[in-house]
Amino acid sequence: MIITLEPKKLPEKWYNILPDLGFAVPPPLTGTGHHMGKMHLADIATSEIIEQELEDNKRDIRIPEKVRDLYSEFRPTPLYRAERWEKSLGTPARIFYKYEGGNSAGTYEANTAIPQAYYAAEQGVKSLVTATSTGEMGISLAVACNYFNLKCKVYMVRSAYEEKAYGRYIMELLGADVVPSPSHETDVGKKSLAENPESVGSLGVALSEAFEHTNMHEDAKFCWGTVMNHVLLHQTVIGQEARAQMREVKAYPDAIIGAVGGGSAFGGLAFPFYRDRKNDTRMIAVETAAVPSLSKGTYRYDYADAAGMTALYKMYTLGRKFVPPGIRAGGMRYHGISPIISAMYREDVLETRIHTQTEAFQSAVDFARAEGIIPSPESSYALKAVVDEALICKESGKPKDILFVLTGNGNLDVATFKDFLDGSVADQPFLPDEAAMRELLEGSSDAQ
Amino acid sequence: MIITLEPKKLPEKWYNILPDLGFAVPPPLTGTGHHMGKMHLADIATSEIIEQELEDNKRDIRIPEKVRDLYSEFRPTPLYRAERWEKSLGTPARIFYKYEGGNSAGTYEANTAIPQAYYAAEQGVKSLVTATSTGEMGISLAVACNYFNLKCKVYMVRSAYEEKAYGRYIMELLGADVVPSPSHETDVGKKSLAENPESVGSLGVALSEAFEHTNMHEDAKFCWGTVMNHVLLHQTVIGQEARAQMREVKAYPDAIIGAVGGGSAFGGLAFPFYRDRKNDTRMIAVETAAVPSLSKGTYRYDYADAAGMTALYKMYTLGRKFVPPGIRAGGMRYHGISPIISAMYREDVLETRIHTQTEAFQSAVDFARAEGIIPSPESSYALKAVVDEALICKESGKPKDILFVLTGNGNLDVATFKDFLDGSVADQPFLPDEAAMRELLEGSSDAQ
Repeated sequence: MIITLEPKKLPEKWYNILPDLGFAVPPPLTGTGHHMGKMHLADIATSEIIEQELEDNKRDIRIPEKVRDLYSEFRPTPLYRAERWEKSLGTPARIFYKYEGGNSAGTYEANTAIPQAYYAAEQGVKSLVTATSTGEMGISLAVACNYFNLKCKVYMVRSAYEEKAYGRYIMELLGADVVPSPSHETDVGKKSLAENPESVGSLGVALSEAFEHTNMHEDAKFCWGTVMNHVLLHQTVIGQEARAQMREVKAYPDAIIGAVGGGSAFGGLAFPFYRDRKNDTRMIAVETAAVPSLSKGTYRYDYADAAGMTALYKMYTLGRKFVPPGIRAGGMRYHGISPIISAMYREDVLETRIHTQTEAFQSAVDFARAEGIIPSPESSYALKAVVDEALICKESGKPKDILFVLTGNGNLDVATFKDFLDGSVADQPFLPDEAAMRELLEGSSDAQ
Repeated sequence: MIITLEPKKLPEKWYNILPDLGFAVPPPLTGTGHHMGKMHLADIATSEIIEQELEDNKRDIRIPEKVRDLYSEFRPTPLYRAERWEKSLGTPARIFYKYEGGNSAGTYEANTAIPQAYYAAEQGVKSLVTATSTGEMGISLAVACNYFNLKCKVYMVRSAYEEKAYGRYIMELLGADVVPSPSHETDVGKKSLAENPESVGSLGVALSEAFEHTNMHEDAKFCWGTVMNHVLLHQTVIGQEARAQMREVKAYPDAIIGAVGGGSAFGGLAFPFYRDRKNDTRMIAVETAAVPSLSKGTYRYDYADAAGMTALYKMYTLGRKFVPPGIRAGGMRYHGISPIISAMYREDVLETRIHTQTEAFQSAVDFARAEGIIPSPESSYALKAVVDEALICKESGKPKDILFVLTGNGNLDVATFKDFLDGSVADQPFLPDEAAMRELLEGSSDAQ
């Protein structure tokens, strides 16, 4: 069953959760331990984005009219009730999902790529640079750059560059310049290749290369695809719409579930519900067993990239030097996680779950056969957590309303599911020992 | 700019053009020249589908409630005005496109796959069989079969089975049984492979194999993806919605444009406008230069499949034995075309255009960069015709309203566009000589 939302109910504002949290999120610091000021970020980001990143007072941030116009080409997105899947699970639970995979890029990153491109064009920037793991942020940014006649440069994690060639082809068709990371274009990339010529890369290294590139080019700015406060802010259109749609069918979620890599889709869905302060609504962040930064990481100041070029962010981290195993969900291969999500976990306002990729992909196949939509590998982790909650309802006989975000469709990732069905996808457990963890966290700090 | 349509305005009926045409469409005949009766089709199709195929009296056919429910999960689809593309073309024309690629299969075939699966389930059929060129009908049918717990068997043209593996993987993920055609599973397939073990196949041969399979399995029925009257009927939801959406912005098309392989998307868009009988609205069917069945074929009775297992249909045909060159738009590789479209062309109520694939793909790349949507290779042909019309408006300075149907997104076909951008896609002209044409038409008949 589809639950639509009238076009005129497209949100007019993004929701900034910081003033409502009830506890502080430690601010970013410079490498020398000072509070991060606007000037420290000006080389990298546009002034509007810096304002949004550091804003901890204003709850509602107006969405520019031009951005709303472009959002309206694919938003409000549908909310579905997964009745066929419920039936196949035999659960009395009602399962709702907010589907962000219906736009042309097939993924939710458009929600942040569009405003970032808009502000860049307004400020006279000529080109935007990003790092992408699965290609999705890259595709979204390539589309957004074309809207505003900006050049687009993408550092794409090498494993994805080769395995997910279709994503790369789409970016190239759209006119973006896509480089496999580690590359020979930056010092960071060269150093990484010197250490390991066979490196498959990581989002952390791709981020460092993108920063270095941005620093070297005066008319370029960098775009974050996740992790940062302003990205989570932009993604709150997801949760605001979902909340209005749930209300249309007189429902309210007992559990809100999302997969977390950097945390932006989960945050975007959950934050507008947090604003209601309903204490009996559980928020569940789902991680891959191969990279459980939130559940098994250490809460301390660490760099957001591998080379240590960003500010220091207080977050749960496996250490910036952690090179995640080559699991298929590229969006989950990140050593840290959003500082806001980290603080919320620290304060026990959200729970975590850890699932292996084979558990996740089996849920994805079952879901696709019931609902007719192939989920992205990242969202598959959320699906497994939804199944577990639904089966608890089945056992107890108590119906609950479960809401999750399906961040993208997996049509471009279907080779991954084919490999899974063929039995050639193995689980990759997370097992660094304590000494290894200490080394990975080198340069991070528990100051604050 | 998006032009949405309220969910409650989803069409309640399909539109049957036959009573409004003002001229007769010659009926299908048996191989022995007799009029085709319901009994001749009963082995292959469900009774509701046969009724619809032969219905030439009733204008409006009610869409079953369950089918409307499933349509509503992705319909009404958006109509877009391509303002960014207009600007890049420098045309005073207003260009509107009905976008059918936003559903989970990414293509318009869902509009017919869903009712065909519905009627099959109602009649107690256990499995559905189809032939697919690009995989799109196969994906759509695989989704629809899951809705109704039907088995799905797909004969997929071998060139596409190998080149468009992602489409196949999606069908397999959804649980369909996909076989490359020509296959060793049927006599037709075996014969074809004996003649040419390297055969890349054609839709005509895949259709024959699917028929043979259906005939051999009592609980199976065949599903057409295009060509037949009932398929065009189902597709009229496209044009009905587009007409209502154009009205919302007080526009009416001066030109209606669509690519034609079997003719169902073009017919689905154009027919509801034909009902208005506005003589100054031009209808333009766009063919590939490699398989111009409508423009360069002969109007006579021919079989709809390669082996001659179907009824005889009066249509423009290149001959059932014509093996189309291996162009990239698999949906255009068909020797014939819808009998209704054929009769309309015969009566001069529609025009044709012929474009090469390199012309088409260049238009597709330009469109994608402006609009952010990658078109299917098939729809790319329509885009080139739109460009030509828009440039005539530019030259004359006279604005016109142009409407076309974008049948699907090309995300799964992006390797084709990569090859095009790399310069490795060549044009394949249509040049059989007269003697070859005579041989291809063997077994067809100009009887009426």
